[in-house]
Amino acid sequence: MQLKMTTEDLTEFMAEVFPQVVGDFAVEDVRPMGITMRLIVSDRHLRPGGTVSGPSMFALADVAVYLAVLAMIGPQALAVTTNCSIDFMRKPAAGVDLIAECRLLKLGRVLAVGDVLIHSEGHEAPVARASLTYSIPPVPVG
Amino acid sequence: MQLKMTTEDLTEFMAEVFPQVVGDFAVEDVRPMGITMRLIVSDRHLRPGGTVSGPSMFALADVAVYLAVLAMIGPQALAVTTNCSIDFMRKPAAGVDLIAECRLLKLGRVLAVGDVLIHSEGHEAPVARASLTYSIPPVPVG
Amino acid sequence: MQLKMTTEDLTEFMAEVFPQVVGDFAVEDVRPMGITMRLIVSDRHLRPGGTVSGPSMFALADVAVYLAVLAMIGPQALAVTTNCSIDFMRKPAAGVDLIAECRLLKLGRVLAVGDVLIHSEGHEAPVARASLTYSIPPVPVG
Amino acid sequence: MQLKMTTEDLTEFMAEVFPQVVGDFAVEDVRPMGITMRLIVSDRHLRPGGTVSGPSMFALADVAVYLAVLAMIGPQALAVTTNCSIDFMRKPAAGVDLIAECRLLKLGRVLAVGDVLIHSEGHEAPVARASLTYSIPPVPVG
Repeated sequence: MQLKMTTEDLTEFMAEVFPQVVGDFAVEDVRPMGITMRLIVSDRHLRPGGTVSGPSMFALADVAVYLAVLAMIGPQALAVTTNCSIDFMRKPAAGVDLIAECRLLKLGRVLAVGDVLIHSEGHEAPVARASLTYSIPPVPVG
Repeated sequence: MQLKMTTEDLTEFMAEVFPQVVGDFAVEDVRPMGITMRLIVSDRHLRPGGTVSGPSMFALADVAVYLAVLAMIGPQALAVTTNCSIDFMRKPAAGVDLIAECRLLKLGRVLAVGDVLIHSEGHEAPVARASLTYSIPPVPVG
Repeated sequence: MQLKMTTEDLTEFMAEVFPQVVGDFAVEDVRPMGITMRLIVSDRHLRPGGTVSGPSMFALADVAVYLAVLAMIGPQALAVTTNCSIDFMRKPAAGVDLIAECRLLKLGRVLAVGDVLIHSEGHEAPVARASLTYSIPPVPVG
Repeated sequence: MQLKMTTEDLTEFMAEVFPQVVGDFAVEDVRPMGITMRLIVSDRHLRPGGTVSGPSMFALADVAVYLAVLAMIGPQALAVTTNCSIDFMRKPAAGVDLIAECRLLKLGRVLAVGDVLIHSEGHEAPVARASLTYSIPPVPVG
């Protein structure tokens, strides 16, 4: 299995397709069937008390699986999330970024499944885990 | 079962505690063990193509169950989401708000469970469904 | 939307295809995009204390969505479960059957999503809720 | 973190508390915050075509997290499953046992969360993944 997109490709793609979230996420590492992503925490991700909000963690898990899939199949695909299950297990540490470690467990013709562990940078205990299913539309025959 | 918070109470509470999301959500109706919420769709909720993003739908489902719980137990509690499962089933209609219908299926001493159906205003078919568990911390004895 | 299988069709189909579970499940009612199923509780479904086991409730939810899909598309399809999320909310009442109310929220060309509420017969409060996704393989062209 | 129950303790406990499933499951290995379990596949676990049924895989994931929790806290606790999310990703191989690798991601005072990867013995690709939450009731003060 070979990567079709590098860290740079994925970063450019993200900036083009999701301009609203530029500055929120960074690709730390991409590898066959896996990716490491960072949520660059800023005020808009926070809840009272200074911890990262649930929707921000959901967004991080979602983009991680999305880019892990695209890295394998290339940028042409319009993959969409069909399901997510997420467990919030600990309060994130204040004032540090979140790191998501994602691995693809299945990359089928129609469905892809990835799981994600999220931890606060510099802390080992996971703050959240998520599993997501993406539906991969058939590539139009040109 | 009686409500401890009205629509107005919930709206004020939201504005105080989550100033970042003021203008995003509106309480349409609250009733024992249930709530109807609106996502006031604006540019920052959209993905390319003009459809509402997954994280925005997650946020809507999350706040709906949260406020449905608080309406029953009052604003003193620091309830936190521990789990969410969400299915994205259809593309939201462009240019209209999203409406979330939430009912609490369980309101225990320690855990509350709610489910949510989200549809585009004026369209019947659900765009997403979610179920969430909230952990309710013990009220400190004063 | 019209049903392609009646209660009798579904019962016969179940007996033929899942002989191991004959006597476990009964179709109570089938309607467009919905079904009511019964788990005929016997010793093999019980956990210590006399309550129905989690796997038995999972099996009930799973078969309910499966038959609700087949009722709509006919018995030819080899639908398979791809995802299930289930919340166990209360202890089932001892000595009574479980009733599952299922509605299909989506019946697409490739994926179907159903949700299920399970309660003890004669009791209103739900003991479990589940949502399931089925993958529907393309019908072979003959 | 130290184990409070060995493989032998867990096996004995299972036989005593769940006599219905004796012969179904075996503890392969237990370690701090993790366990490896086997589903000893027999006819009653199979679906047409000879593959292991969804409910049997659910049961395997459920018992794995349960015993992983008990190994850490001891047999006195009446832990109950409150939530499970499971993805079925591939057809199990015919004629071989299933192996579940479980790790506990959180072991709190009130809630424990574990995730599980299931594969067919001798095959690397996972057939299913699951995450489960257990609620741990307070130990009665004697």
